[in-house]
Amino acid sequence: MTTTTLADIAADHYRIPLPVVLSDSTHGDIPFFDLVTVRLRDADGATGTGYTYTVGPGAAAVHRLVAGDLGPLLLGQDADRVEALWQRMWWGMHYAGRGGAGSFAMAAVDIALWDLKARRLGTPLWRLLGGHDPRVRAYAGGIDLQFTLDALLRQTDDNIARGFRAIKMKVGRPRLHEDVARVAAMRERLGPDIPLLVDANMRWRVDEAIRASRALAEHDVFWLEEPTIPDDVPGHVRIAREAPLPVATGENFRTLHEFLQMISAGGVDFPEPDVSNCGGITPWMKVAHLAEAHNLPVTSHGVHDLHVHLLAAVPNASFLEVHGFGLERFIAEPLAIVDGYATAGDRPGHGVAFDWDGLAALRA
Amino acid sequence: MTTTTLADIAADHYRIPLPVVLSDSTHGDIPFFDLVTVRLRDADGATGTGYTYTVGPGAAAVHRLVAGDLGPLLLGQDADRVEALWQRMWWGMHYAGRGGAGSFAMAAVDIALWDLKARRLGTPLWRLLGGHDPRVRAYAGGIDLQFTLDALLRQTDDNIARGFRAIKMKVGRPRLHEDVARVAAMRERLGPDIPLLVDANMRWRVDEAIRASRALAEHDVFWLEEPTIPDDVPGHVRIAREAPLPVATGENFRTLHEFLQMISAGGVDFPEPDVSNCGGITPWMKVAHLAEAHNLPVTSHGVHDLHVHLLAAVPNASFLEVHGFGLERFIAEPLAIVDGYATAGDRPGHGVAFDWDGLAALRA
Repeated sequence: MTTTTLADIAADHYRIPLPVVLSDSTHGDIPFFDLVTVRLRDADGATGTGYTYTVGPGAAAVHRLVAGDLGPLLLGQDADRVEALWQRMWWGMHYAGRGGAGSFAMAAVDIALWDLKARRLGTPLWRLLGGHDPRVRAYAGGIDLQFTLDALLRQTDDNIARGFRAIKMKVGRPRLHEDVARVAAMRERLGPDIPLLVDANMRWRVDEAIRASRALAEHDVFWLEEPTIPDDVPGHVRIAREAPLPVATGENFRTLHEFLQMISAGGVDFPEPDVSNCGGITPWMKVAHLAEAHNLPVTSHGVHDLHVHLLAAVPNASFLEVHGFGLERFIAEPLAIVDGYATAGDRPGHGVAFDWDGLAALRA
Repeated sequence: MTTTTLADIAADHYRIPLPVVLSDSTHGDIPFFDLVTVRLRDADGATGTGYTYTVGPGAAAVHRLVAGDLGPLLLGQDADRVEALWQRMWWGMHYAGRGGAGSFAMAAVDIALWDLKARRLGTPLWRLLGGHDPRVRAYAGGIDLQFTLDALLRQTDDNIARGFRAIKMKVGRPRLHEDVARVAAMRERLGPDIPLLVDANMRWRVDEAIRASRALAEHDVFWLEEPTIPDDVPGHVRIAREAPLPVATGENFRTLHEFLQMISAGGVDFPEPDVSNCGGITPWMKVAHLAEAHNLPVTSHGVHDLHVHLLAAVPNASFLEVHGFGLERFIAEPLAIVDGYATAGDRPGHGVAFDWDGLAALRA
């Protein structure tokens, strides 16, 4: 037993109501999200925290995988050998684990392991993982498909006032002309200098996505996100090649291999791994490096308090998505946006300190 | 509310000890497996049973997904519209559900829905799904990597005595010459007329698999199963093209899309969907038809009491794998093998009647 032997693992499941009910083209109304946290302690008393979340079903299963299956696999192992533990988790639950809920469970544990390592070393994650540049361009990720145009523009004004200099909005309304009109109004409100991104949440067939890309390109759209289902690699290649807008996708990829397939086929311009659902920091960094090798940037999805560190670590960072589902109410010093940028902090680890007492009332 | 409205859904989780501890190159020793069952009842009182299983972790999460997430999505829906309910499950839990444990949970429910439909109609599943030929060639699927050569040959003699006329053995021993010697001894014992299949359980690098395929081909091996990880499509293409043995894979594919990728790339000769982990009968049949369109047979993995119906339904059936992990102790009339063939029964539905009282003692 060394000082880095993993001595304790605690998993918890909370249901967090959203301040405002959100909506997109795939998930419909979203009144709450589920948070699964992991707290680790090594033999020396050092601690690390990880977390993941789900929109809709699955969090109870994720919690069960961590508490019932991954915990027993990891206790007593050397917590500092993260690559070895990642393999141990992957192969230990491969049959029912590869992808799906298993990738969320592994993510929460892997994030906690990296946090533990960085805190032991007294260094922030972004420095531990590479230390490229702590300042990362950020955009406000609106979940606003059902907002009226007035509400959409008001939200945008608020985001500019909060310091954002790039905005993402949802598309995928029942008729394309509605999307085009909303995007045109947004472009007019933003002026020519603020990037506008759009996100279709897998809504379209490939031919629809190509038509939409052509129609929206007139209004200077920065990228088109998730135009169709993540499983359709040749479809993404068509959208990327036959239509003008660059393609972002990846929030629904659960393994490094899924990213490799899409990237090597040429179906994505902005790979978008989500550390909370792709298996954690270990595979997220590999996706970032894979993108770099393919002359591509890397971007992020959700959990911005973690992703700011990952994007700050690498040389090929694109935008940080900022939307926290109101989780900032339970975080000590939530991320600030100044003149369009977020900055990775200098607290050891990822630096996210939860209000555990506040969360306790929301235990699922 | 119609007579086919889904009125009740019950999920249960059992841990079944194996009569003999088994082993393969990936999962190590296997002392038990976990069974998750689903029982449905419609408003008219008709019932359907589905089940899935895991080797190693995950079953508690699968059970939780069925009981906590899929159940509420399905109750009150028309149980007879299976395609609609499958889509409802897929999109209802897409974010944390696509693949992994979610595919097992959906499988158990989908199997129960098809059983319910067939029982309402008073017809066996194999007729409902196409009715090609109830007689299906079967092989005995040995899980025997750590068996001594003597034990391997004794098991083989037993299987021939039980009526099998085709045998699968594990490969992936620490040194290739051990595999070659064991395969040679098996071929000698079987004579020239009994097909011998081998299964590497993802053990090898691509170059190792190619070398193994070449070495084993001398002994007339029928197929090489899971030569490497399921995520490596180009690797499978190399193994299929550069080495002599046909390639079987699919027990670790969790979606129709994964099959499409491997089949359309030319990386598999015997697609091997497992109804209990690919999302159920609904996608299994689509994989079978996809294989047929690509001029390929379809085979199966595990749960032979179900797969005999599916293979009997389609015109492109290859072998049925038979290994039940001792589940036959809890099934009223387990599948019989006569002169190398299994026969899909004529009881309505899949016809599997569990000994629920016997299972009750093994509740997890």
